[in-house]
Amino acid sequence: MLTLGMVGGGRGAFIGAVHRLASALDGRWRLTAGALSSTPARSLASGRELGLERVYPDWREMLRRERALPPDERIDAVVIVTPNATHFEIASAFVRAGFNVICDKPMVTNSREARALVALARKRRVVFAVTYNYTGYPMVKQAATMVRAGDIGSIRKVFVEYHQGWLAASIEKKGQKQAAWRTDPMIAGPGGTIGDIGTHAENLVATVTGLRIESLCADLSSLVPGRRLDDDASVLLRFRGGARGVLSVSQVCIGDRNGLVLRVHGDRGSLAWRQEEPETLAWHRADGSARILTRGGAGLHASARRASRLPPGHPEGFIEAFANIYVGVAEAILARRAGKEPTGLGAEFPTFDDGARGVRFIERVIASAKANTWVKF
Amino acid sequence: MLTLGMVGGGRGAFIGAVHRLASALDGRWRLTAGALSSTPARSLASGRELGLERVYPDWREMLRRERALPPDERIDAVVIVTPNATHFEIASAFVRAGFNVICDKPMVTNSREARALVALARKRRVVFAVTYNYTGYPMVKQAATMVRAGDIGSIRKVFVEYHQGWLAASIEKKGQKQAAWRTDPMIAGPGGTIGDIGTHAENLVATVTGLRIESLCADLSSLVPGRRLDDDASVLLRFRGGARGVLSVSQVCIGDRNGLVLRVHGDRGSLAWRQEEPETLAWHRADGSARILTRGGAGLHASARRASRLPPGHPEGFIEAFANIYVGVAEAILARRAGKEPTGLGAEFPTFDDGARGVRFIERVIASAKANTWVKF
Amino acid sequence: MLTLGMVGGGRGAFIGAVHRLASALDGRWRLTAGALSSTPARSLASGRELGLERVYPDWREMLRRERALPPDERIDAVVIVTPNATHFEIASAFVRAGFNVICDKPMVTNSREARALVALARKRRVVFAVTYNYTGYPMVKQAATMVRAGDIGSIRKVFVEYHQGWLAASIEKKGQKQAAWRTDPMIAGPGGTIGDIGTHAENLVATVTGLRIESLCADLSSLVPGRRLDDDASVLLRFRGGARGVLSVSQVCIGDRNGLVLRVHGDRGSLAWRQEEPETLAWHRADGSARILTRGGAGLHASARRASRLPPGHPEGFIEAFANIYVGVAEAILARRAGKEPTGLGAEFPTFDDGARGVRFIERVIASAKANTWVKF
Amino acid sequence: MLTLGMVGGGRGAFIGAVHRLASALDGRWRLTAGALSSTPARSLASGRELGLERVYPDWREMLRRERALPPDERIDAVVIVTPNATHFEIASAFVRAGFNVICDKPMVTNSREARALVALARKRRVVFAVTYNYTGYPMVKQAATMVRAGDIGSIRKVFVEYHQGWLAASIEKKGQKQAAWRTDPMIAGPGGTIGDIGTHAENLVATVTGLRIESLCADLSSLVPGRRLDDDASVLLRFRGGARGVLSVSQVCIGDRNGLVLRVHGDRGSLAWRQEEPETLAWHRADGSARILTRGGAGLHASARRASRLPPGHPEGFIEAFANIYVGVAEAILARRAGKEPTGLGAEFPTFDDGARGVRFIERVIASAKANTWVKF
Repeated sequence: MLTLGMVGGGRGAFIGAVHRLASALDGRWRLTAGALSSTPARSLASGRELGLERVYPDWREMLRRERALPPDERIDAVVIVTPNATHFEIASAFVRAGFNVICDKPMVTNSREARALVALARKRRVVFAVTYNYTGYPMVKQAATMVRAGDIGSIRKVFVEYHQGWLAASIEKKGQKQAAWRTDPMIAGPGGTIGDIGTHAENLVATVTGLRIESLCADLSSLVPGRRLDDDASVLLRFRGGARGVLSVSQVCIGDRNGLVLRVHGDRGSLAWRQEEPETLAWHRADGSARILTRGGAGLHASARRASRLPPGHPEGFIEAFANIYVGVAEAILARRAGKEPTGLGAEFPTFDDGARGVRFIERVIASAKANTWVKF
Repeated sequence: MLTLGMVGGGRGAFIGAVHRLASALDGRWRLTAGALSSTPARSLASGRELGLERVYPDWREMLRRERALPPDERIDAVVIVTPNATHFEIASAFVRAGFNVICDKPMVTNSREARALVALARKRRVVFAVTYNYTGYPMVKQAATMVRAGDIGSIRKVFVEYHQGWLAASIEKKGQKQAAWRTDPMIAGPGGTIGDIGTHAENLVATVTGLRIESLCADLSSLVPGRRLDDDASVLLRFRGGARGVLSVSQVCIGDRNGLVLRVHGDRGSLAWRQEEPETLAWHRADGSARILTRGGAGLHASARRASRLPPGHPEGFIEAFANIYVGVAEAILARRAGKEPTGLGAEFPTFDDGARGVRFIERVIASAKANTWVKF
Repeated sequence: MLTLGMVGGGRGAFIGAVHRLASALDGRWRLTAGALSSTPARSLASGRELGLERVYPDWREMLRRERALPPDERIDAVVIVTPNATHFEIASAFVRAGFNVICDKPMVTNSREARALVALARKRRVVFAVTYNYTGYPMVKQAATMVRAGDIGSIRKVFVEYHQGWLAASIEKKGQKQAAWRTDPMIAGPGGTIGDIGTHAENLVATVTGLRIESLCADLSSLVPGRRLDDDASVLLRFRGGARGVLSVSQVCIGDRNGLVLRVHGDRGSLAWRQEEPETLAWHRADGSARILTRGGAGLHASARRASRLPPGHPEGFIEAFANIYVGVAEAILARRAGKEPTGLGAEFPTFDDGARGVRFIERVIASAKANTWVKF
Repeated sequence: MLTLGMVGGGRGAFIGAVHRLASALDGRWRLTAGALSSTPARSLASGRELGLERVYPDWREMLRRERALPPDERIDAVVIVTPNATHFEIASAFVRAGFNVICDKPMVTNSREARALVALARKRRVVFAVTYNYTGYPMVKQAATMVRAGDIGSIRKVFVEYHQGWLAASIEKKGQKQAAWRTDPMIAGPGGTIGDIGTHAENLVATVTGLRIESLCADLSSLVPGRRLDDDASVLLRFRGGARGVLSVSQVCIGDRNGLVLRVHGDRGSLAWRQEEPETLAWHRADGSARILTRGGAGLHASARRASRLPPGHPEGFIEAFANIYVGVAEAILARRAGKEPTGLGAEFPTFDDGARGVRFIERVIASAKANTWVKF
């Protein structure tokens, strides 16, 4: 088992708990160390509550002391689940010290930071994952492989939407902690919804289609009165090679929970996938036939099969997809230590390149919305 | 029973057959006269095949002779189901002669014609319907009434999509008659997909939400090589009052059949409706509750109830919705003859105002796409 | 156009209105005569309200006077939509006089009557349809053809259910007219739910699978206190050749509207169809593949294609399926007059044989339930 | 963290892997010891592969040596995931030695064994869970609480089905290991499909409704030629108090994966839940309203809330439900050690009583099928 340290993610933090579940699932990681809060006392309390072996008051102390441990006793990777604006400093410090990193998205808050962090991570040759976790779903992997296999031909049109409703009221003013920081530009960075879930949508499109955005035209709104960052974004996309796209993300859609949907249309067929029903992938072909592919079922590529744990009909979900990233990072670390190229899940998780492109995407959407017109990507 | 004359819609024409089914369903109309083709011989043959009482070689002859009949023997309305570019001339002539008109969409091919036709129809005081047939669905009527009743509060965001796949290959070059004329700007007018189904989407939004478009930004594409008109359109919408919208229409989406979907999000709730599963309307409220309203079921407004024929669970569909327009026109004609204001279905069908706004919509989308930026509506 | 006379089905009667819509849809039938109620005054009033050409006070007078008309002026068929217990007398009289008959189900109330009526109809060589209308759905026809084509191999197991909820309360005691007669053994016959919808389920199984019931074991209940006939029935089925089946029908399932569902499992594949979503048929094969066949779409047999009016994505429903029986009867009558064998829809509608088997099914279910054990069919 | 020992479940065994994932998820259990195969060499190899701290050649050795450890070093519970026929001996031995037990279903192969084991477990006061894992789903817990709260009134009718297709061919003759033992009466016990998944269905009904079966009538078949145990079972149920039920289980339904479906109809409403879409529970009420309750969403009871880890829209599935049993057993053990009554999940998991009733159910179904008639439960 590899060992994991966590920065941020103390009691009450949604994403910290998710990382703990995902890393525990497959018995590949043991969470042993942590600085789980920006407040030292809460950091220590949270760590003890979770029974961590090494509890630190803050991430600097954690870095200092882990580094001081013999290599085989220190954590094998650190996961950073703090608010966005702190990612750069923390990730840079750990990378500089040679630690492998799992970083929440968006990776950083601007492209200058992104470039610096990518350069550093390349130089230090650490394993660096950004948790665009939706790419961990088996049927997303199946879709990506099918596109590359030509199963739907040349792509013409992409629709991606990610609609939530949890910010439909101004709960940031009523003490909801996550809402408060995600709508605060000083902590979340320049993008609100476009930063939080817009980059998930962008990453899903890039991962499945391999298309590169050439230009885009965005409409960015704060539909809840008084909100300081965008809570709704609609973006027209033009890809290299001529394909078109529509990206719609919103967090004010009452009734929508976590509605990430991708539809990819080629000249020979199309694929549709819905995160809330992640076990199936609909495949329509030009001959009019309609097939439903199912996780664990017949007709799947190896990429989907190896990302699956249970037979079909035994629903896997969000945690399993997220855990696939943790399995991948484990395999990449072990491969690197063995002097090998990682393969399979170890070669498939999103890295700093995805992270940097995501940050760039946020910036260009904001630029387009401000200019009220199309911009180059 | 009222009597109907048909211009266009001879054997093989999709929409002509639909109008015949829809007008026959409720026993309110009898199709008695027709000039069903632009070719006189085929026109006569088609009419005889259908057993029409009065078969004409062309619409001019039909107009001349119907007009010459005593008022109580002539047709009560004419339905025009010819290709778009001919609508203006035919509709104008019949209106001028005082006939009630049911005209397929788009009503005409430019706003100049639209204004002239509207003025004429107002002057002659005829009943004039444009068959934006999707507004005839009971659950669309329910949605429109709910919006006006404040059930979802103030609207913030509208998503409308209408995706088909029947033009995914260049079948217009292989003798498919409808594809040929719909992709020919001389016959279809300046809009391809945006004209054919984009206006349905615009009309559905307007009918349900009552919102008025203030400005829009469109991306219009011909994704099938060599196609002469657009086959894909994505449009960002800004409505008066601040609501935003996304409209996506395409006819190259393999696997999509007739995928008209409307989602309306307000600050108190949201509504979602899918044409391919037209019997239900999903209603989510800010309290987190999710209700499924069903045609014929509990909790519906009178607008939905009177547009319904069967108990829930006995699926109604496209023909019934279309037939509601025919019932409405019949009631409007009878009301007018009785010197009364029409009510119910007789007051709800789309008219020349919808037709004119639809034409304007096509023009503004094209203008935005050409200018590659936002335009005022 | 053929002409139709109606017995029963006056204003307020559900099934009478359905027959009017279904017969009108395709322009093959004109309703010209009727004795729409058992009360002469209401019969005349109802007929006039509907604008019938020949309105009669009762069915005997209707039979007498229609018979007196010259053959080419009298109705081409009579439809009988009265309560069950009157079917035998009325149908026998019309058949004896040589009229073609469309009779609602169950055809009669016992097998003695059934045998007599079948013998008479055979002797008089009339066209005789029993409106097991669900067999009119295109995807039901597709399923039946696929079974015969061996697409799912040898059938092992059949599940059919038909669950409604409209009798969940004892509305028969509160003046609901249809509930009153359907729960009254003197009018409905010996079967309540098993007679009303159980025979639909039995007929659907027989039509699609071609299997013959060998023995059955039934549990029949009146789950609503004080109800005089069964409102719930569960039946285990053994078919000739070894296949097994489960038939479940109920009218006390709150939330279920008209939930007729058929699933047929063979040794090479399976088919599933749901009446409330009638446009698709799910086809699973032993190789693990899952296909969704759609009305109007690719891969359908001629039996489904000719029963369809619109392209896929333009929902057809209950009326269209029902209308296919009317088209079939029209074609059968015309074929017979032309001295030909009917084909297509004209050869597919349910006849007196289906009607007689349905009556027998009711009787055997009741016998099994009373004996509390298996009985031979 | 509590420590777990596993008997059976070596590499290749489906259910062993499931137990490992489920026990690991929440960080409440660490798998430290095991005798994973009936073959000592494979047992040791499997254990080492999994990195267990204490690897044993067989369960007897495991029991002997774990017992010899100081109480705070030995395993806190043993999970038994061997073929059915061995459960009794293994479970009895561990219980006798005072170990807490998690036992796969069916608990044992006959009621004599069941009674003996229950008596023993009561006497030794161990925590004893039987992994009827579907009861761990939050929306199943919600349904059970709603029934008890009277939300659907008095229950009238229950439909439960559990349809799989993995035994549609005689794969037991082609080396499929699980198929081989599950169709072998010497290893699986007297029930095939009725034992494997029929008891899951029975347990789900009992857990949700609280109803007790009074009598039943079963049809048991081996639809695949040459199969030694039943692969299909249909059972009519009569419950104390007058409610009726239908239970259908099959493993020869091509296209069905793990189709466990429960529908409960009361006189005030109904509930429907599908294991393959486990996140929602449909609730229909007598007033005609239809609500969809969602895991993590609004309107849920505490029983559902505490069994949930993620917000709605982040799909949880099979593992999470299974893990709820492991959390429950952990809490029960800790409560017992603290001298307290367990509450919440610790009081909700299925125990030896469920296990014994499940065994009795298998026996009575077989008795009914043999006698070809109704039997008392």
